[in-house]
Amino acid sequence: MSGKTQGLIGSRVPKIDAWEKVTGTARYGHDITLPGMLHARILRSAHPHARLLAIDTRAARRVPGVKVVLTGDGVTCANLGLMQDHPPLKSGKVRSIRDEIAAVAATSEEAAEEACRLIKVQYEPLPAVFDPLEAMKRGAPRIHDKVKGNLLSFNYRFSSGDVDSALSRSAHVVEGTYTTRFVTHACMEPCFALASWDPQGRLLLHSTTQIPYLLQGHMAKVLGIPGSAIRIKQPVIGGAFGSKLDTYPYEVITALLAREAGRPVRLLYSREEEFVCSPTRQPMIIKMATGCDADGKLTARRCEVILDNGAYTSWGITTPHIMLLGITSLYRVENVLLTAQSVYTNNPTSGAFRGYGNPQGTFANEQQMEALAHKAGIDPVEFRLLNCNQPHSVTPQKFRITTCALRECIETCRDSIDFKAPKEGLEGVGMASMFHVAGGGRVYKSDGCGVIAKLDDFARLTLMTGATEIGTGSDTAMAMIAAEELGLPVENVSVINNDTDVGPWDVGIHASRTTFIAGNATILAARDIKAQLAPHAAEKLGCTEEELEWFGGAIRVTGDHDRSIPIDKVVRSLHFREQGKMVVGKGFYDPPNEFQARDMTGNVSSTYAFATHACRVRVDPETGRITVLKFVAAHDVGRVINPLGLDGQIEGAIAQGLGMALTEQVRLDQGRMQNTSFLDYKLLMARDMPRDIELHYIETNDPEGPYGAKGVSEAGIIPIPAAIANAVADAIRVRIHDLPLTPERVLEAIKSKP
Amino acid sequence: MSGKTQGLIGSRVPKIDAWEKVTGTARYGHDITLPGMLHARILRSAHPHARLLAIDTRAARRVPGVKVVLTGDGVTCANLGLMQDHPPLKSGKVRSIRDEIAAVAATSEEAAEEACRLIKVQYEPLPAVFDPLEAMKRGAPRIHDKVKGNLLSFNYRFSSGDVDSALSRSAHVVEGTYTTRFVTHACMEPCFALASWDPQGRLLLHSTTQIPYLLQGHMAKVLGIPGSAIRIKQPVIGGAFGSKLDTYPYEVITALLAREAGRPVRLLYSREEEFVCSPTRQPMIIKMATGCDADGKLTARRCEVILDNGAYTSWGITTPHIMLLGITSLYRVENVLLTAQSVYTNNPTSGAFRGYGNPQGTFANEQQMEALAHKAGIDPVEFRLLNCNQPHSVTPQKFRITTCALRECIETCRDSIDFKAPKEGLEGVGMASMFHVAGGGRVYKSDGCGVIAKLDDFARLTLMTGATEIGTGSDTAMAMIAAEELGLPVENVSVINNDTDVGPWDVGIHASRTTFIAGNATILAARDIKAQLAPHAAEKLGCTEEELEWFGGAIRVTGDHDRSIPIDKVVRSLHFREQGKMVVGKGFYDPPNEFQARDMTGNVSSTYAFATHACRVRVDPETGRITVLKFVAAHDVGRVINPLGLDGQIEGAIAQGLGMALTEQVRLDQGRMQNTSFLDYKLLMARDMPRDIELHYIETNDPEGPYGAKGVSEAGIIPIPAAIANAVADAIRVRIHDLPLTPERVLEAIKSKP
Repeated sequence: MSGKTQGLIGSRVPKIDAWEKVTGTARYGHDITLPGMLHARILRSAHPHARLLAIDTRAARRVPGVKVVLTGDGVTCANLGLMQDHPPLKSGKVRSIRDEIAAVAATSEEAAEEACRLIKVQYEPLPAVFDPLEAMKRGAPRIHDKVKGNLLSFNYRFSSGDVDSALSRSAHVVEGTYTTRFVTHACMEPCFALASWDPQGRLLLHSTTQIPYLLQGHMAKVLGIPGSAIRIKQPVIGGAFGSKLDTYPYEVITALLAREAGRPVRLLYSREEEFVCSPTRQPMIIKMATGCDADGKLTARRCEVILDNGAYTSWGITTPHIMLLGITSLYRVENVLLTAQSVYTNNPTSGAFRGYGNPQGTFANEQQMEALAHKAGIDPVEFRLLNCNQPHSVTPQKFRITTCALRECIETCRDSIDFKAPKEGLEGVGMASMFHVAGGGRVYKSDGCGVIAKLDDFARLTLMTGATEIGTGSDTAMAMIAAEELGLPVENVSVINNDTDVGPWDVGIHASRTTFIAGNATILAARDIKAQLAPHAAEKLGCTEEELEWFGGAIRVTGDHDRSIPIDKVVRSLHFREQGKMVVGKGFYDPPNEFQARDMTGNVSSTYAFATHACRVRVDPETGRITVLKFVAAHDVGRVINPLGLDGQIEGAIAQGLGMALTEQVRLDQGRMQNTSFLDYKLLMARDMPRDIELHYIETNDPEGPYGAKGVSEAGIIPIPAAIANAVADAIRVRIHDLPLTPERVLEAIKSKP
Repeated sequence: MSGKTQGLIGSRVPKIDAWEKVTGTARYGHDITLPGMLHARILRSAHPHARLLAIDTRAARRVPGVKVVLTGDGVTCANLGLMQDHPPLKSGKVRSIRDEIAAVAATSEEAAEEACRLIKVQYEPLPAVFDPLEAMKRGAPRIHDKVKGNLLSFNYRFSSGDVDSALSRSAHVVEGTYTTRFVTHACMEPCFALASWDPQGRLLLHSTTQIPYLLQGHMAKVLGIPGSAIRIKQPVIGGAFGSKLDTYPYEVITALLAREAGRPVRLLYSREEEFVCSPTRQPMIIKMATGCDADGKLTARRCEVILDNGAYTSWGITTPHIMLLGITSLYRVENVLLTAQSVYTNNPTSGAFRGYGNPQGTFANEQQMEALAHKAGIDPVEFRLLNCNQPHSVTPQKFRITTCALRECIETCRDSIDFKAPKEGLEGVGMASMFHVAGGGRVYKSDGCGVIAKLDDFARLTLMTGATEIGTGSDTAMAMIAAEELGLPVENVSVINNDTDVGPWDVGIHASRTTFIAGNATILAARDIKAQLAPHAAEKLGCTEEELEWFGGAIRVTGDHDRSIPIDKVVRSLHFREQGKMVVGKGFYDPPNEFQARDMTGNVSSTYAFATHACRVRVDPETGRITVLKFVAAHDVGRVINPLGLDGQIEGAIAQGLGMALTEQVRLDQGRMQNTSFLDYKLLMARDMPRDIELHYIETNDPEGPYGAKGVSEAGIIPIPAAIANAVADAIRVRIHDLPLTPERVLEAIKSKP
């Protein structure tokens, strides 16, 4: 089956969910109510580290409208988290300011809040520790009784070749320590959960989760009920960026309250709670050394990373898996030694965030590349081209690189930002590249996604899937792919992916995998449908199946378009007859990638993304303020599915990445967040964005990707802090190793210049 | 694949939706709200027949909160109904008291009602006609301008043999005219519709419809938009009994209001509206003659039926199809002549109702059998046994009867009600049998139903289907069948059938078809899943696929139950590996039945149900009141799937059938309903039911049925008015030909006795 296609792939299609979003009719969590629903509020710790001596809930229980008050001692449930160290409601001890001590369900939010205020908690404050280096020291306060030195046993080591010897033999070596701070996702929609139990004891949990099927399993484990007794539904999700990759105490608490109340219970975070209680990106201390020979060829890299884990572990503990990708495999280097150690502190728990450690790693890596080039007296762009990764190669971590346009990305940026152009005042140019998973990332037993496709008598196609849309445009990509395969208008396609009872399994939205993996599953399901329709259509049209062309809502004969039959008519003629058929296709795609072994080798993704960003900045010598004059992003995206969506993804990533580079920081004082509003936590707004942004897409047509596409959702943020830091160093001739590059820090750097 | 089964089929399983219904958590239409939702009210005609001269909506539009006021002249849409004679909003002329003249959407129900009150309609009343015989006369008021004599062109004629000659040669002939009146479904839940349009112009219509997929097509046609732009969702439905087999003006009006308002609009009928505006059973005038030879063998039957169609046509116009079933095919009779003519009147439109004309036809048929037996001097039970239908026979209408336990049904009732027992006062015994479709009824191009079955990692099975649950227990039957096939607990099965975007096609719930057809589709889907799991399970267990036994949530080796593996584990081991699979099965079942030809022959159902009811009644000679002392129902059900559900179906049918026989009548005065509350419209309540009810199920194991089952939902109501009439005739020695058998009518009959 071939013939002319509709040419949808690569055309600018507005997101299929844009309409309801811009008209305000999309139903987010706060739009969902159930009859008899109660409202929940959570009381959190007043201290970052303390023993809980007594909790008096009597006054709270007397507040009119209060139906349930729960404390940690009053519930039986298992711990959350990959290390199972996280009780949904704490008892005995609190370890961070975020810790959930009690929860209330009441007939109004006001009553629930009032009740929380009236709960009297008697604490015995304990010495606390907020710096991972301090936390590792002998005699530091121990956060979990059983964990010596606050060191998580879940740590990472990768070794290839002989780094010490290679470094000592290198012509040039740079060394440095780079630090990144807490930043937060700042989703437009605060967290939400709505739990209700049916009379037979089955839980229906509405949640803005990114992992509906894992959540089903987690909730079963935590609540001690079978997974078959849990159904997860998702409303429209107002941003996630990795922040909903875990199962959180608030989801468990909402379920416990609802079970106790015998009524539905809804929890909505306030904006302040969202800032205080949702996870952050891991702050890291990265000590790195890189060497090259006299010709500029990389010889060795050593990298030791300390991660501030916060008080409990999330999925984020697996961040080093991905962070180390770029360090080992963006450029060719044979001798590599890497270690990563997560450390408990009394800070808020950090978790998954777009890029998953890779922006932090790249911040160190690409600054060292620049510094090493200067040291070797080689043009930094040429230095990168000399060392950059190449198609069809294998990296020390055994990543099998297939398509790779890193060279083209670097050259595109070089050509767009004129590195030799004259500069006015404190102006500088910088560049950074990145390497990331782009064909899934096997971090769970299955990296698969299922799609059931139903084509009805009116040529309406429904794609039922577990693949979650969190704003990346993956639903639109799926609709476009299905429409392209079947020759349908995109408008005829619905994507239903909000219910674990309906959609087949998907591991969750992470690792930039959804368009790649759900897209491939969509192709399989659509082709299953085509195989059902084709014999019938060929018979009706008097041609072979190979001659069929699927175009414009019809099936027609290639080269003889007058012989054509509308697709809905084909479906009806199959359906409306004795012993009729229905047209339902299915596809399950699990990519050909591998679990990493304990030694951190293994082809974790079935393809990889490459990108280079470059920028020109101007630094105000009076204020230290950085202005980004021009920003260029060149991405190896495999194939562009939807340029409109891709532009949005990359532009959004630039805003978020510039925020991380320039302005964003969760400011903590004794583990307590100080800036809990959008006034105090500075996201970049439209007016803060560079006026001149150029986006370039290099199409390598990945053989494993849907229509050749690679995953691209995270790639856009990864090189940005490094590119900015390199440009600023070029401008002020001092290198800043610490994020964000606030005016204060820049000014200090300028003043520190010898 | 064989082995021991769980034995679920035939066990008493509480309805899977009973829990949420008895605890009040089921979400009916009135529980559903959407943000920004408006409330609709409809203004109906003040006259049964009138010209509309002018409609002044100015005052209505000024009511605070009123957003939209629509009249027939203000909308463009096609007509509804099989004859396309029914405008959703009337203009020019009204033809019944139910006619929709204007509709309002407002921010509150009160505002909408107030606005309706303020709409001024100027009528020119026309002469009206309420009796179909009057309506057929020359000079009667013409209801639809183009329809001469008010006779619908959609009429029926069936002829076999030579009836006139056979009757004239018969030893005995009885003749009579039988009349039945308006009765109504009296669903516990009044009608509901909730329409919302998405910003791209796609309609989401929530409706308590019985025909979601036909409704999708009807709405498309009426609104002039593609079917792909329509999605139907169903809430939990509080009874239907055929009343939701059509697309109604209120559904179209709600959609029009919502489109005009740009906001969701919900319409809920009041109880009074439900009485006035929902359809009724067709009143019929049945003129019948039946003859037999000297041995009591039936020779001929002639039957002319006039149906009061009301002012517009519904699907109910096809009622004669089914009504005539029993008349031609309950007993063996070679010479048959049947005609049925529907007539327009200014009465409310009648429609589909459980039994679909068969209770009316059987009311005549079985009274004549009794009368003819008496005339021939043969015991009526023996007379029936002599003439009753037999397995593996073909009837004059070319119905191919396969399994048939009519003889056993009659004998069971004879043995349970002692027809010879001495009687006290005005006591009588009576019997009636029935013949009905039980394997679907091909009245539409497809009689099929599709099921998608998804089995997840926790052995949760979801059945996605278009088959609608209206309280018959069909969801439970599907869950039991799937659980039995797969060896799962029923609790692990969810049935999702509330969304045309999700569930595959089903023609709708009618003709007692759902358990039969959706049950067969479920078996196909479950076996598809078994075929996916079996090779893997056999490999794990080291046996052949034929040796596998599906039992208790596990797959085990027949005869060696220690070799066993939980089903969820099999699913996970298929899923959680490289190149894993998902477990999704599908089944589409379209029964091997035929469209009837224009001459009314054709095997319309793939199997048929038989039943006999008998009762003993006592008549109070002072008041005419009938007390049913004992009631026996014997049904050929093929195979009992769920005895608990089946008991409920038959007991419910007895309550509804006794209501039709004894108390229920929509009282009309000039086309205007007089009894519009449960105080005035007398349904039988628990305390009115016979104390002594015996239910007998005869299992003929139909080869086409799911596990041998036949459809049975309508069967229970069909023989009841006839059985009661026969028992009353036995008691008072006067035969009443008119329903219902109210005390007044009985007393009159007693007094009329010569």
